[in-house]
Amino acid sequence: MKTFPSSFPHVVVVGAGFGGLRAARRLAGLPVRVTVIDRNNYHLFQPLLYQVASAGLSAGDIAFPVRSALRRQRNAGFLLAEVQQVDLTNRRLLTSAGEVEYDFLILAVGGQTHFFGQESLARHAFGLKTLADADGIRNHVLSLFERASHESDPQRRAAMLTFVVAGGGPSGVETAGALAELIRLGLSRDFPNLDVSGSRVVLLEAADHLLPAMPPDLQAAAEKVLRAKGVEVRLGARVDAYDGQVIELANGEKLPARTLIWAAGIRAVELVQNLPVEHGTGGRVRVLPTLQLPGFPEVFVIGDAALLEDERGKPLPMVAPVAMQQADTAVENLGRLLRGQPLQPFHYRDPGMLATIGRNQAVAQIGRLHLRGFIAWLMWVVVHVFQLIGIRNRLVVMINWVWDYFLYERALRLIQSPPSTSRLSGQEAPQAR
Amino acid sequence: MKTFPSSFPHVVVVGAGFGGLRAARRLAGLPVRVTVIDRNNYHLFQPLLYQVASAGLSAGDIAFPVRSALRRQRNAGFLLAEVQQVDLTNRRLLTSAGEVEYDFLILAVGGQTHFFGQESLARHAFGLKTLADADGIRNHVLSLFERASHESDPQRRAAMLTFVVAGGGPSGVETAGALAELIRLGLSRDFPNLDVSGSRVVLLEAADHLLPAMPPDLQAAAEKVLRAKGVEVRLGARVDAYDGQVIELANGEKLPARTLIWAAGIRAVELVQNLPVEHGTGGRVRVLPTLQLPGFPEVFVIGDAALLEDERGKPLPMVAPVAMQQADTAVENLGRLLRGQPLQPFHYRDPGMLATIGRNQAVAQIGRLHLRGFIAWLMWVVVHVFQLIGIRNRLVVMINWVWDYFLYERALRLIQSPPSTSRLSGQEAPQAR
Repeated sequence: MKTFPSSFPHVVVVGAGFGGLRAARRLAGLPVRVTVIDRNNYHLFQPLLYQVASAGLSAGDIAFPVRSALRRQRNAGFLLAEVQQVDLTNRRLLTSAGEVEYDFLILAVGGQTHFFGQESLARHAFGLKTLADADGIRNHVLSLFERASHESDPQRRAAMLTFVVAGGGPSGVETAGALAELIRLGLSRDFPNLDVSGSRVVLLEAADHLLPAMPPDLQAAAEKVLRAKGVEVRLGARVDAYDGQVIELANGEKLPARTLIWAAGIRAVELVQNLPVEHGTGGRVRVLPTLQLPGFPEVFVIGDAALLEDERGKPLPMVAPVAMQQADTAVENLGRLLRGQPLQPFHYRDPGMLATIGRNQAVAQIGRLHLRGFIAWLMWVVVHVFQLIGIRNRLVVMINWVWDYFLYERALRLIQSPPSTSRLSGQEAPQAR
Repeated sequence: MKTFPSSFPHVVVVGAGFGGLRAARRLAGLPVRVTVIDRNNYHLFQPLLYQVASAGLSAGDIAFPVRSALRRQRNAGFLLAEVQQVDLTNRRLLTSAGEVEYDFLILAVGGQTHFFGQESLARHAFGLKTLADADGIRNHVLSLFERASHESDPQRRAAMLTFVVAGGGPSGVETAGALAELIRLGLSRDFPNLDVSGSRVVLLEAADHLLPAMPPDLQAAAEKVLRAKGVEVRLGARVDAYDGQVIELANGEKLPARTLIWAAGIRAVELVQNLPVEHGTGGRVRVLPTLQLPGFPEVFVIGDAALLEDERGKPLPMVAPVAMQQADTAVENLGRLLRGQPLQPFHYRDPGMLATIGRNQAVAQIGRLHLRGFIAWLMWVVVHVFQLIGIRNRLVVMINWVWDYFLYERALRLIQSPPSTSRLSGQEAPQAR
């Protein structure tokens, strides 16, 4: 692990997502040494994960090495490790790379897919939270088209070409829209002899409207655009079980489909659920208004892992702006602790909401302003592309988009095998083709 | 499988590499229906595979979907399948997607890594023939740097940072040069507290010179450039065994290293080795000068799978230009068969040889012209970039290179987990971090 020349207090930031990376960078201004720990060596730009799943972008376009992001910051180092346990009493972490002691801890570990304890879903449905999820979905969808192209049984073929997304939040809406366009604009040309019109993209939402956090007019607009793109929107539809072949809905209906993408819930990771403190819905840790862990003033919890209510008593949403603003407040309060000043409570400044539906439509709510259509989509592009860390990523993402937009030539429709490993490379070597 | 409106003869092309894809495209002009079969849905631009292994390019930059390449060709379809057996007598293929009958067959299945029967190598060394190999090497090398950054034992750390490439042909030379630059220019900045000068890139070659097919002055030039880039070139060094920890050389020397990349041999794939005909070195099939399989005039074998001597009795090399020129001759002869004309023998027009050594040096031999240094590298860039199929790939590859060249900001240094699979996605979901 990196050692620093000073005897400054050691701040450990767990998680290199939006919250963790922002906190690490802000800590550059304090007299501390910083270690960022993540189980991946990259920061993942989660809002564009659905683009990797739908073959629009490749992993390298939305993932950025943490070490590059921290390179110019003298007081920060990185440790690639999985944190297995937080020992709050002794102020240390048990990790896959050994023990790490801390003076201050910022927990920014994010969330994971929540299958609500339904074992059949956890086993057969895809989550959409990690690069492995996204690569898996892309491989799976493209492989099904290949298999369907020489499947003679019409019922089996129909099930192969039925792609179901559960969850009508921004992630589910974006994924369903992107899949519909991948099929309609991309795969229909790749498979001229396959009746692609037999394929379906179905979006299931348990409530009676999409995008629950959006105002009703934009909810309706999103639904209309999705339907126009060929997505079957099913409201009031709750998934009971899935065996990899047939989705069972709560009303008894059976939907044969080889693909279920689960975008219907996020919960805290086990590391957070196991903390010996009070938890709220989804296993999130209830924090003080200062973002400190009750009873442990040296520990801050931010982002999806933390549960805090807004002025109206509503839990803050699990979105990037909350995590990033909380990073600012946590670092500010950490500095105040060092200087012996009183801490400040967190106040969320809501920047609004954006959800894109395919490559030229979106809905956006910014304060009282409601936008839809192409204008909202342009705003979405600008906001997301410029949020991406690193000019190089921005350039490649923009070229991919421009290319996509004009030619719909998705050269990323690759079905990739898992990487060889040292131990297995010989066994996995090509045997024949 | 694609069905065609005509009752034209069915030509099956197995393999979508340089030879197979070229043959398929040339067949556009003949009154036949064409099916290309490959176990991957993409054409792999193998000459740049070492760039993916050394984190310079991503998979999407060097792989291009076969269906996109064939989209405008009315008489051609694609089948994603692994060919398990060629039934020459009944003119049919047994594949993972069922039986496929043919009237004419073009076998262009390429080669695979040849470990010369050394089980320990096959088990512990990386080949460099597939995208999975390249992704595996990149993950492995970057992970070793991460582990070395918190390894306290100096001997273990040294073994982690010793990267050995076996084989002094173009592939080995390019890989060793690219790894040395990745470490010296990229990782040294990512790991400021790790003594990167303790890392080694070792190139082992059994003969007493590199690049055996090159003239002696270029062999010497390549060796000099590699050494200047920090590669330890060891000539007359033959690998006996490798257990994943220590490489044993034929002279008894032991070289502790966690990484061995095997670029020392290519042989025919099992499908070709199992054909009931005469085989040459490396299991290649001995073909007639017309590229037909002896006794089976409807079967052509081209590229790495085929063995044919040049005018001086030397076997033609296993390189892309041979495969592509043989594709032209095979299709020409297939057309002559259809028209009842006499067939023509294959003549190889040697376009010369190119090998790059890092990002600004190369050696090239074109007829009597011998080039080295930056000029040769520029030629290498132009030749390879413009050979890439598809404008999009070209654009992205060029941007990556320009970026690399000026800033050495390798944003692709990602350690990626294997993609989730439908069955396992739940189990592979994040458990903690």
